[in-house]
Order: sequence, then structure tokens, then C-alpha cells
Amino acid sequence: MLTPEELERIVVVLVAPRNPNNIGAAARAMSNFGFPHLRIATTYDVPFHDARSAVGAAETLAAARQFERLEEAVADCSLVVGTTAVGPREVQHPLHRLEAAGGLIRAHVSGVPPGVAEASAGRVAILFGSEKTGLSREDLSHCHWLLRIPTRVEHRSMNLGQAVSLCLYELIREELLREELIREELLKETGGAGSELPRQGNAPAATAEERERLLALLLRALEVSGYTQPNADQDMQQKFRRLILRLNPAHGDVAVLLGVLRQFLWKLNRSG
Amino acid sequence: MLTPEELERIVVVLVAPRNPNNIGAAARAMSNFGFPHLRIATTYDVPFHDARSAVGAAETLAAARQFERLEEAVADCSLVVGTTAVGPREVQHPLHRLEAAGGLIRAHVSGVPPGVAEASAGRVAILFGSEKTGLSREDLSHCHWLLRIPTRVEHRSMNLGQAVSLCLYELIREELLREELIREELLKETGGAGSELPRQGNAPAATAEERERLLALLLRALEVSGYTQPNADQDMQQKFRRLILRLNPAHGDVAVLLGVLRQFLWKLNRSG
Repeated sequence: MLTPEELERIVVVLVAPRNPNNIGAAARAMSNFGFPHLRIATTYDVPFHDARSAVGAAETLAAARQFERLEEAVADCSLVVGTTAVGPREVQHPLHRLEAAGGLIRAHVSGVPPGVAEASAGRVAILFGSEKTGLSREDLSHCHWLLRIPTRVEHRSMNLGQAVSLCLYELIREELLREELIREELLKETGGAGSELPRQGNAPAATAEERERLLALLLRALEVSGYTQPNADQDMQQKFRRLILRLNPAHGDVAVLLGVLRQFLWKLNRSG
Repeated sequence: MLTPEELERIVVVLVAPRNPNNIGAAARAMSNFGFPHLRIATTYDVPFHDARSAVGAAETLAAARQFERLEEAVADCSLVVGTTAVGPREVQHPLHRLEAAGGLIRAHVSGVPPGVAEASAGRVAILFGSEKTGLSREDLSHCHWLLRIPTRVEHRSMNLGQAVSLCLYELIREELLREELIREELLKETGGAGSELPRQGNAPAATAEERERLLALLLRALEVSGYTQPNADQDMQQKFRRLILRLNPAHGDVAVLLGVLRQFLWKLNRSG
């Protein structure tokens, strides 16, 4: 979980993007995950303020800044990370998978990397290259290290908006293993104050007594319908008791099923 | 890390997508991460084979299957997960954050969740609604539980291709201690009624198709018995679909219940 101050220290830099819609898609992902700073490094005059796919991202686009040169776009950043589709053998830079890169970037913006007590927080730029060619050798020369999204070797090239979205998600992703987060999830699950229907997974299960009432009514309906002989044997009774036990209906669902069976019985008793 | 067999068991279902380019973007993300099965549930004739943004995803698009009805698209799946942008207070289904949902889905397709030694692997459908409106109430009634990508409350609505991409990334993402996370989630799931996993250790859960057959017969019996009016409304249908989902009957139990309902119907039809 990044604090607002930490989110402020992360800058998304699109280098020479071609398609305004991709800029819009990147801005939308940034808005979804709460990253305010978009910069675009290009010598072309990209009409990104009109980007169509930027549902709800008008604010992010309006605040976006354009730079002619990459060095200007990353001038205030103390860590510059390049994104790449290529594998470790093809680059000279250190290369980290996204999962690990996320931890490094978070450590940099939080200023408290494990084991480096006196580190101070810095600004990070994450660079995304153009749709066709990615980052150039010149662009890469500005990077401290590279980040790779773990795509298949056979199909590495990603959609630009999706790549931005994945990197930001990894940064805000929560490790649910932490005790308090598990508790939070559980609270969310069980605190169904607003929900009317019992929820799967935590609705109170029916008691044995309720299940027996359901079984009794079911056995009567089975007999009246001709499914079983009068006074069905113990085997049949146990078979359906086990079935109801496996279904393990919730308290509220038993009430519905009893109503259904009563209606069936009423009608079955009228049949010839 | 998912095995090829596990990847085969995960189906991405786009429900009523509007824009062929989004279908292409979803297919590209699937190809990036190695998920082969794309299904599209729509009554429109979507020209998705021409989707433009599908760089490198021609194979995925060529193998995509179109269905007129959602129930056909998920017929062979024993777990159906809906994606949603809304928060826990606004839905009736159990809701899991993406981080936790990934563990649950992997447990289902791997068939070896910790602590449930004899569970067998099942197929999972992950549903994505249309760009404008998301999944409808009717669509949601097919879902066991919902998955939420942890976007900001102020801007929840995501680009469709990005949403697909994030969900698949979470599934192939590598993490230490994942086993523990899954165990926690499973405990949560099995703590109450109607758990998503097979209850009695080794009985495979019914597929969506089997559950639909059960629902159809139940609805007919409800009508013939006078419990519902002829041509019961959608609400009633969805109410009982959710109930059957919660009961989550095993494959073998569905066969028994179908036999019971057929006998009831035979007798009910003879009543005056």
C-alpha cells in the first residue's frame, strides 16, 4: 500500500508514443490506481488531451506534461526504470521481473528500504517506449535498471496501456498474507450489513434439526409422488440425509426449500 | 506458476463486448500470458476476427468461440467468477480482491488445494461484462463469486483489455508463501455453508450445464405445482439459480435430484 506522498513520487513517462488512444488508456490506468504524474517525452505535438479511451481520466490528462527530450522528463528523478519486452540475455542492464521490480520501486519512494536505515525517499520514473519499437538504446542509457513483465517468450510485445496498467497494479498490490489484511478481508466478508441474501461461504449453515425437517418433508414428497414405496426403508432415508448434509444448505435456504416442498406436497396430494 | 494443463482449464468469457478492438486487446493479453481459451457470449455478430489491436494474437482470435447465451459459454465450467467494479456493500455475492481471487482460481484448476487432498481439478470461467455496463444481474446469477480489481473508489471503471490483462497476470504471477495465502482463503471459504470447493473431499462439483438442467426442471415443477405463475419472472429464475449455486451440488447428487424432480413432475402433471 503506497501512501499519497509515495504515489506522488512515481512518474509514468511515455517515450515517443504514436497513438493518442494509448496515451488515454495509460492515463485511465493511472487514474484507476491513483498515480497523478504523467509525462510524455516526444518531439511530435501529440494531441493527447483528446485521447478517446480515457474514460474518467480527464484530470490526469489535463495535468500531463510534455517534454521534448527524455533527459528533461526525468530530470528530477533519482531512479529511472526502463520497461522492456526482451529477455535477460539481450540487455546490458540489470533486469528484474515485475514482481521484484515493484518491491525495489516501493522501497525507493518510501525511503525505508529494508536494511538501509538512512536512505531517503526519492522520485522514480518508469519509462514506456513507443508501441512499435519500445525504448531505444539512447533511451535505455538513462535507465538504472530494466523491468520485464513476465510474458511468454513466444509473444512478449504488450499493448502499451496494458503494460502501464500492470506495472501500476504491481505497485499498489497488497500482500494479503499480512495478518491485518486477512482480518480486513474477513471483516468485509462477514460484515454484510448491507446485503440481504446470505452470502456464500459465511452464511450460517442450517442446524441438524432444520436439516431433519427438510429430510422429513422430502421423504413424504418422495412417497406421495411414487418415487419410494410407503414406509421407505432406512437405506433410502440415510441416502437422502447424507445428500442434504453434502449440500449443507444455509439457514435461509432451508426456509425456501421447505416452502417449495410444502407446495409440491399440497399439489401432489391432490393428484390422482 | 500454472502448468499448460492448468492454463487450458481457464476460460476468458467476454459478455456482450461492444468494441472489436477491445476483444483484440483481450486476446493479445491472453496470448502474452499463455491462456488459450477465449469465448464471447453475445447475440450480435461481432467481427472479432478482424480486431485491430490484436498484435500477435491471431491464433487466440482464430480459436475464439462465440455463443449466443452465457449459459452455453460456461456450460463445462465448475467455477464461474464474475468481475466487477463495485464494492462489497453493493453486491449480493461474495467478493474477493484480485490478489485473493487469483489463489482461489489457481486452487480450482490445479485440483490440489492444500488441505483438500482428493479434490479434483475443474474448469474456471472468468466473466468480463460489456465496456459500458459491466455484467448484468442476469449474468451475475451464473457466478459463484465476484472478483474486484483494487481500483480507487473515485475511479473504478477500467478499460476492458486492461482488466483482462491484470486478472491473467495475477494468475501467472510468482509469489513466495502463496501456499499459505491459499490455505487462509480456503479456510475462509469452507468455514460456512455452501462452499465453493467440493465438500466431501473428493466429489467433483457439478458443471454449470448440470446446474442449469437442475434449475430448468425445478422451475417447471414450481410452475406446475402452483408455487410460481406460468412463465415466472427473471427474478424468480435468478433467485433459484443462486440457491443452486450456493448448494453447489456434486455431480452425482445432481443425477439423484434430477430423478427426484422428474418423478415429482410426472405425478404433479397428473394432479387436478
